Amino acid sequence: MTIIEARRDQACLIVHGPDQPGIVSAVTTLITRNRANIVSLDQYTDDPEGGAFFQRLVFHRTDFTAARPEIEADLERTLEPFGVSWRLEDMSVPKRMAVLASTSDHCLLDLLWRQRRGDLPVTIPMVISNHTNVAEDVRSFGVPFFHVPSQGPDKSEAEARILELLTGNVDFVVLARYMQIISGDFLQKVGVPVINIHHSFLPAFIGAAPYRKAKERGVKLIGATSHYVTEDLDEGPIIEQDVIRVTHSQTAAELQTRGANVERNVLSRAVIWHAEDRVIRNGNSTIVFN
Amino acid sequence: MTIIEARRDQACLIVHGPDQPGIVSAVTTLITRNRANIVSLDQYTDDPEGGAFFQRLVFHRTDFTAARPEIEADLERTLEPFGVSWRLEDMSVPKRMAVLASTSDHCLLDLLWRQRRGDLPVTIPMVISNHTNVAEDVRSFGVPFFHVPSQGPDKSEAEARILELLTGNVDFVVLARYMQIISGDFLQKVGVPVINIHHSFLPAFIGAAPYRKAKERGVKLIGATSHYVTEDLDEGPIIEQDVIRVTHSQTAAELQTRGANVERNVLSRAVIWHAEDRVIRNGNSTIVFN
Amino acid sequence: MTIIEARRDQACLIVHGPDQPGIVSAVTTLITRNRANIVSLDQYTDDPEGGAFFQRLVFHRTDFTAARPEIEADLERTLEPFGVSWRLEDMSVPKRMAVLASTSDHCLLDLLWRQRRGDLPVTIPMVISNHTNVAEDVRSFGVPFFHVPSQGPDKSEAEARILELLTGNVDFVVLARYMQIISGDFLQKVGVPVINIHHSFLPAFIGAAPYRKAKERGVKLIGATSHYVTEDLDEGPIIEQDVIRVTHSQTAAELQTRGANVERNVLSRAVIWHAEDRVIRNGNSTIVFN
Amino acid sequence: MTIIEARRDQACLIVHGPDQPGIVSAVTTLITRNRANIVSLDQYTDDPEGGAFFQRLVFHRTDFTAARPEIEADLERTLEPFGVSWRLEDMSVPKRMAVLASTSDHCLLDLLWRQRRGDLPVTIPMVISNHTNVAEDVRSFGVPFFHVPSQGPDKSEAEARILELLTGNVDFVVLARYMQIISGDFLQKVGVPVINIHHSFLPAFIGAAPYRKAKERGVKLIGATSHYVTEDLDEGPIIEQDVIRVTHSQTAAELQTRGANVERNVLSRAVIWHAEDRVIRNGNSTIVFN
Repeated sequence: MTIIEARRDQACLIVHGPDQPGIVSAVTTLITRNRANIVSLDQYTDDPEGGAFFQRLVFHRTDFTAARPEIEADLERTLEPFGVSWRLEDMSVPKRMAVLASTSDHCLLDLLWRQRRGDLPVTIPMVISNHTNVAEDVRSFGVPFFHVPSQGPDKSEAEARILELLTGNVDFVVLARYMQIISGDFLQKVGVPVINIHHSFLPAFIGAAPYRKAKERGVKLIGATSHYVTEDLDEGPIIEQDVIRVTHSQTAAELQTRGANVERNVLSRAVIWHAEDRVIRNGNSTIVFN
Repeated sequence: MTIIEARRDQACLIVHGPDQPGIVSAVTTLITRNRANIVSLDQYTDDPEGGAFFQRLVFHRTDFTAARPEIEADLERTLEPFGVSWRLEDMSVPKRMAVLASTSDHCLLDLLWRQRRGDLPVTIPMVISNHTNVAEDVRSFGVPFFHVPSQGPDKSEAEARILELLTGNVDFVVLARYMQIISGDFLQKVGVPVINIHHSFLPAFIGAAPYRKAKERGVKLIGATSHYVTEDLDEGPIIEQDVIRVTHSQTAAELQTRGANVERNVLSRAVIWHAEDRVIRNGNSTIVFN
Repeated sequence: MTIIEARRDQACLIVHGPDQPGIVSAVTTLITRNRANIVSLDQYTDDPEGGAFFQRLVFHRTDFTAARPEIEADLERTLEPFGVSWRLEDMSVPKRMAVLASTSDHCLLDLLWRQRRGDLPVTIPMVISNHTNVAEDVRSFGVPFFHVPSQGPDKSEAEARILELLTGNVDFVVLARYMQIISGDFLQKVGVPVINIHHSFLPAFIGAAPYRKAKERGVKLIGATSHYVTEDLDEGPIIEQDVIRVTHSQTAAELQTRGANVERNVLSRAVIWHAEDRVIRNGNSTIVFN
Repeated sequence: MTIIEARRDQACLIVHGPDQPGIVSAVTTLITRNRANIVSLDQYTDDPEGGAFFQRLVFHRTDFTAARPEIEADLERTLEPFGVSWRLEDMSVPKRMAVLASTSDHCLLDLLWRQRRGDLPVTIPMVISNHTNVAEDVRSFGVPFFHVPSQGPDKSEAEARILELLTGNVDFVVLARYMQIISGDFLQKVGVPVINIHHSFLPAFIGAAPYRKAKERGVKLIGATSHYVTEDLDEGPIIEQDVIRVTHSQTAAELQTRGANVERNVLSRAVIWHAEDRVIRNGNSTIVFN
């Protein structure tokens, strides 16, 4: 039985909005009223006095697909007075994830491989790259590959082509070391979350050749950060981070290899948590119920 | 403002029992009905089908002390039909922690020191030891020290003296490297949770001189485990664990020093989580809402 | 330039034996005398008074292949009076690694994949399994796959067949979740190091279904250990260990998935360190110069 | 037997300079010639072709104190042709460490406490603070406390007073959350290494209130960095770093508490490694033989 099959008749309800007395009570009463069982419930309020409220509730309801319209109508009626937003996700339906990559393939192949092993609760309808070197590898996984070249300063044509491929076909996008700037215009039009991965250091090293700079400074930890992409590239809400220990005896190239390993692990956790609706954005930070 | 002061008018409700539809709804409706706000809510069900249900709910209620009897009566009425057990803890009242120690003082002094710094939400009404070497240090923290010698095979007299000191005066007991076997009789009579700390390895090394054996086997990680004490010594429900990396170049004595550092850190986390009612026992395992 | 290409004209000298004054001096003088440069030197003595001495010295010598016989003759002459053993490894020649697997493929595929990416300084001349389910995956990496069934209590025929395949063709063997007992007879005959990987816990859980037992005990860390195989299965010298944090909310199956991830990472580090001659056995422990 | 007593007749030789053939041979032959035994030897060359060479050699020589002048004369003669610099440290003599602090005491008290426990191979001849709140605590450890106020923009008078206290009395200085800018003039005059500790994040948060900014960005790791102080404050060579995991449920104040714990642990490791001459500066990075 795969992860997804184990989630038959399970749904995930995300509620998010101004905190107020009675809201948890209202939601959980609704679940009971609809003959569903709560499997797990996570809740967080960022400030007990007038803060924001975040809830992730997983429930099991026999014949969920049939009952869904009724439950949604009940949610609409019940939550309307609270002024909160909500969404209901069928956990037996894997999210569709597009991957954008460039020449570097360590994150891309790691995602393809984990997905094939059943470790990621997603399908991968397509990989898009501005290079062709990974095409054969991608297709050997049975995943469609599209080459969208991106030369010159004007990226609008390439972005339009990518949007055409993505629209309607994917639930979120992962930039797996995709070395192109994403425009604010693209982000608005794509209409689904975009997740990025990049190396991280303490302290940060700005600009080109960060591993060389990290080596020169003698850092003892190499890290990676996965975050949602916003118009401020590399400044969006963080989903997951991790580090690995290094010493003076590693070369800058070896730091980069270790960094690539951390990137793969961090990105796969971020993808799983996003795909399971465990990550809720809160301004420029995230609530991660994991 | 100390940790404890920040928790004025906050209470923690622990509910634990057979899972069933409607229980979360009943509890959260009760909170609303008593004009309290939910600060945080953690919940876990160990099996969606007929499993056990664990909930930790922190709420804020103006004038909690005055309202407490009424809330408790409501809890009694509301939860009785569900057949679950519950308890209500005033979070502005620090738990009273007794520490039992022997000659080794690294865990004992760490607790005294963190408590003085305000990092532990507890008071320490007494330290008891079967040795006297730590007496002066303990008293320099303003904490009473009692010497209860424990020679010979018959520990019943020493245990009786310790029980006399503890009874009514403490909410839980920490064995901070207390090198005496605790009898099942003692555990029954003491009536409060007892927390232990000990070194841990992968694989385990049974019997005396574990650090020497770990050195001989060339282990790469040294660990510590904190757990509730049951009649099966060192086999009770685990609260927290951690490890630190070692290499061939450390001597057995250096492994022991590193191990002592891990023990201190693990024990202090276990104490904090226990004192904040974040740990719920479930058979021989624990639910830790941290 | 691959890892291996970067090591052109580099060699690794391992010296191991009773510690005594003058040995480091003798070795380093020899290196100078043979017009080689020391790239790195690691040394360890397990006891300053009459202990054992371990040295790993990497040097660069232009035209190493041509100079090798002369250097070896010099080593023979120079080190003979010290009564130590030594070996010289050409670092530009990758070690040949055979992988033995059963039905579980997470460690096997990880090794194949990392090797193809150039992250492991080895070649993989063959994969042997007592099952056939991984055959197609293995061959898609261009690696020969041999099926050696192993039914019934008598393993001698299967072991003989495996020995036939391995003899002369490999420099070390990795058991990548190979679920067959290896006989002492096999270990003697195979004549090359055999590396194993298995899950580890604090405390250890003996026997079948360790993840279920770990879940029942509520462990907070899941680990893996890679070690050389000796006649005491799972009791040989440890090469590398690591752990990952888990909580009460993971099922036993999820613990197992996390454990598989740790196994992959630990095994790949053990393989790299072994293949680079960074691991020296010392009784039942190891010196790891990494 | 304390750490220091165990090091009777042990000395540490640090050699540092341009790499060249024969240098290791020359040093180790010298050790043999002086009837000393090598206890440990660590060596590193940052570039096999014309790089810099770093060596830490610990040796045991009966009656080291008596033999020292002769050994130093031999080192002078032997190493002069290589153009490298060297220093010889008596490992049975603990280094003298001054601590500078301000109002925050978590790092200061941790150092005092570990020193008293015998975990740090140093003596603490004095603590200097621009505040008086820690005076009583410091003196309760039997350590002299000096108050040097530092008001107004002109720090030269305070720095002069501190220099007066330090000169000739200490081997290195630790800034344990000392919240005053150190002038380049002070660094030149003090003539001993100065070690600092500060919080670190991925990414870095510049300026005031970093924990609040880290909270707003939703970081998942909180770190600390210990480094040698140079004129570029917080930009000197890194000695040690570490991180701890945090989640959305911690407040900015709790992030700060966790950060303080990491700071303590990182600083104590940096102090031990420095005091044992395990850290060699190399431009703006460090070689750490640990």
